[in-house]
Amino acid sequence: TRTFRIAVLGGDGIGPEVCDQSVRVLREIESRLNNVTFDFENHHVGVGEYRVSGNALPDTTFAACQSSDAVLLGAMGLPNVRYPNGKEIAPQLDLRERLGLYGGVRPIRLFNEADTPLKGYAAGEIDFVLVRESTEGLFYGRDAVLDPDADEAFDTMRISRDCTLRVCRLAFEIARKRGGKKKVTLIDKANVLSSMVFFRKVFDEVAAEFPDITADHCYVDASALFLVRDPQRFDVMVTENMFGDILSDLAAGLVGGMGMAPSGDIGATAAVFQPSHGSAPDIAGLGVANPIAMHLSAAMMLDWLDHPECKRGAKMIDDAVAKVLADPAKRTPDMGGKLSTTEITDEILKAI
Amino acid sequence: TRTFRIAVLGGDGIGPEVCDQSVRVLREIESRLNNVTFDFENHHVGVGEYRVSGNALPDTTFAACQSSDAVLLGAMGLPNVRYPNGKEIAPQLDLRERLGLYGGVRPIRLFNEADTPLKGYAAGEIDFVLVRESTEGLFYGRDAVLDPDADEAFDTMRISRDCTLRVCRLAFEIARKRGGKKKVTLIDKANVLSSMVFFRKVFDEVAAEFPDITADHCYVDASALFLVRDPQRFDVMVTENMFGDILSDLAAGLVGGMGMAPSGDIGATAAVFQPSHGSAPDIAGLGVANPIAMHLSAAMMLDWLDHPECKRGAKMIDDAVAKVLADPAKRTPDMGGKLSTTEITDEILKAI
Ligand SMILES: CC(C)[C@H](C(=O)O)[C@@H](O)C(=O)O
Ligand SMILES: CC(C)[C@H](C(=O)O)[C@@H](O)C(=O)O
Repeated sequence: TRTFRIAVLGGDGIGPEVCDQSVRVLREIESRLNNVTFDFENHHVGVGEYRVSGNALPDTTFAACQSSDAVLLGAMGLPNVRYPNGKEIAPQLDLRERLGLYGGVRPIRLFNEADTPLKGYAAGEIDFVLVRESTEGLFYGRDAVLDPDADEAFDTMRISRDCTLRVCRLAFEIARKRGGKKKVTLIDKANVLSSMVFFRKVFDEVAAEFPDITADHCYVDASALFLVRDPQRFDVMVTENMFGDILSDLAAGLVGGMGMAPSGDIGATAAVFQPSHGSAPDIAGLGVANPIAMHLSAAMMLDWLDHPECKRGAKMIDDAVAKVLADPAKRTPDMGGKLSTTEITDEILKAI
Repeated sequence: TRTFRIAVLGGDGIGPEVCDQSVRVLREIESRLNNVTFDFENHHVGVGEYRVSGNALPDTTFAACQSSDAVLLGAMGLPNVRYPNGKEIAPQLDLRERLGLYGGVRPIRLFNEADTPLKGYAAGEIDFVLVRESTEGLFYGRDAVLDPDADEAFDTMRISRDCTLRVCRLAFEIARKRGGKKKVTLIDKANVLSSMVFFRKVFDEVAAEFPDITADHCYVDASALFLVRDPQRFDVMVTENMFGDILSDLAAGLVGGMGMAPSGDIGATAAVFQPSHGSAPDIAGLGVANPIAMHLSAAMMLDWLDHPECKRGAKMIDDAVAKVLADPAKRTPDMGGKLSTTEITDEILKAI
C-alpha cells in the first residue's frame, strides 16, 4: 500500500469549508482505490494565522508543504486585512515563489451550456488549459516598498530564460498529454515589450523541441477578444504571470465563474492545488460556498500524483462532477441554484 | 464660419480605405451643419512611409498633427514588418507619447443584440467607457533594446502622480458628462503591485474632487471576469496602459469586435481618433473592411471639437449608425454580413 501525505491548508473565509468537503470526496475515492491511502494533515495559514502569530505562512506549515506529496489549499486573504505596505495577505504567492511552483495550470472546461454567458456552446465545447508563469513576470518586484513621499512608483516585469523554458515545456507536455488539438499558443505582447520579445524567442526554442505539437503566438489584447468570440481556437495557452492572472479569470468566467475553476500550481518537486476563487468573506460560514472548483482541484491533485490508481480516482471525480452538473438545477447559489456546499457534495458522492 | 483642420493619417492596410469612407461621412455632415467647414489634409505615416523614408512618423506629419484641430487615423503597422529590435512599427504609440495623449477613451456600446457573443443583452444594454492611461504604465520602457546575449529581459511599469491625476480626472469628467450611473471604477492590482497601490492612492484623491460621482475599485483579474458575466456593473472604467489594452479588446469583443469599437486618444491640446482594429493586411484593398469603428471614431472627434454644431454632427453619425445596425443584415463580412465598406457607408449616408 502506498500512502500519500496531503497537507491541507484551509486558509481564510470559505477556504476551510470547501476544503473539508473535498477531503470527504477524497476519502470516498480512497475507499474505492486499490492499495492507496491518503494521510491528511491540517495546517495553519493565511489571515487567521497572521493575526495570531504575525506570520501568514508559519515555518511549520511551510515545512509540511515541502515534505508532503501534495498540498490542498482552500483560499487565503481577506480584503480588509492588509500588510503595512497596503497589500493583501496572499501567502499563496509566497508558496509559489518559495516552492518554485512555476506553472499555474488552469483548465477551463464547460460542463453545461447553462453555465456559460456565451451564446452557442454546449457541454464540452469550451475546453482548454491556460498555463500561467507564476514565479516572475510583473509579480517579480512585488516585495517593493512604496516610498510614501515619492511622486512615482514602479514595478518590474522580469522574464528569464530558465523560468520561461520550464513553463513553456510544461505547456507543451500538457498539450501532448491532452491529445486534443495538440497546439500551444504563446500569449505575449512582443509587438511592444522587450521582455515579451525575449519570451517569444525562448518559447520558439522550446517549440522546436516538440515537433509533434503546433506552436503559435497571439497578442494578449487580441487573445482577450478571442476568448469571448472564439474560445475554440485555443488548446493550451502559456503566458506571463500578470497576463495569466487576468486571462484565467476571464476564462473562468466563460464556464461559470471562479467557483467552477480549479487550478494547480506546479513545481519540479512540489505542487499546490486550489480553487481559483478567493475567500469570499461575505458568505463564509453560511454553508453556501460552491465547492466544485475545490473538488476539481482535488482531482487535478490526484492526477498529478502520477500513480495509476490516483489517476483512476481523478477521473472518478471529474466524471462525477460532470454527471451532477449535467442537471442545471444542481447548483449552489452563486450559480443561481439552491444546493448548499454539503448538498452538492452529497450529489457528487452519490455519483461516484 | 469656423473651419476645422483635420489631419487624416490613413496609414497601412485597410487604414486608408476606412479613412476615405469616414471623410465621405464627414463631408455629408458638413453639408448639414451651420457655419462649420472641415479642411482635410492627408499625411503619410506607418509602414509604407517607413519603407520609403526610414521614418514611420515623418516630421511633416507630426507637425501637421500638432497644428491641426484633430487627427483622424486609420490603422498602422503590418505584422511582418518590424524594427530591428523585433517590435512592430506602431507610430500611434509615438503620437500618444509626443502629443501627450494621456487618455485612451474607448466607448463600448451594443447597437444590436445580434452583435454580442453574450446571452441576454439587447441593444443599449451594454454601454460603458473604458479610459486607458496611454503614456506610461508598462509601456514606459518600450524603447528598451534587448541584449541578444542576456539571459533575462525586463520591462518597467511606471505610475506617476501627474499622469494618474490627469487620466483619473478625465474619467470622472466623462462619467459626469455621460450622466448615466455616474460611477468611475478604478481597475488595478493594488493587492500585489506597489505601483498599483500608488495608482489607487492618487485615484482616491481625485475621487474626492468629484463628490457627485461614485468611485470604486476592482482588481484587474476580477474585472475581466465581470466584463463577461456582468458588464452592466461598469459605467466608466479607468486603468493603466497595459491593463487598458487588454480590457478594451475584451470589451470590444462584447459588442462585435474591433471593427465596431471606436477610440479617441485625448491630450490637453491634441487628440487622435482611430478605430480599435489593426491594419488587417489580409483584407486590405478588397473593399470589405468594416468602417463602423472608423465612423464612430469620427463622431467622437466631432464631439471632442467642442462646438455645438460639431456636437450635433456627432449625434447625427451615432444615430445613423444605430439606425443602420438595427437591421442585423446590414453588416460587413467580419460580422457575418455581405455589405462592402462602401455599401454600409452608403446606408449610413442614407440614414443621416
Ligand atoms: C489573490 C491574488 C494574489 C492571486 C494572484 O494574483 O495571483 C489570485 O488572483 C490568483 O489568481 O491566484
Ligand atoms: C498596435 C498596438 C501597439 C496598440 C497598443 O498596444 O496600444 C493597440 O493594441 C491598441 O490598443 O491601440
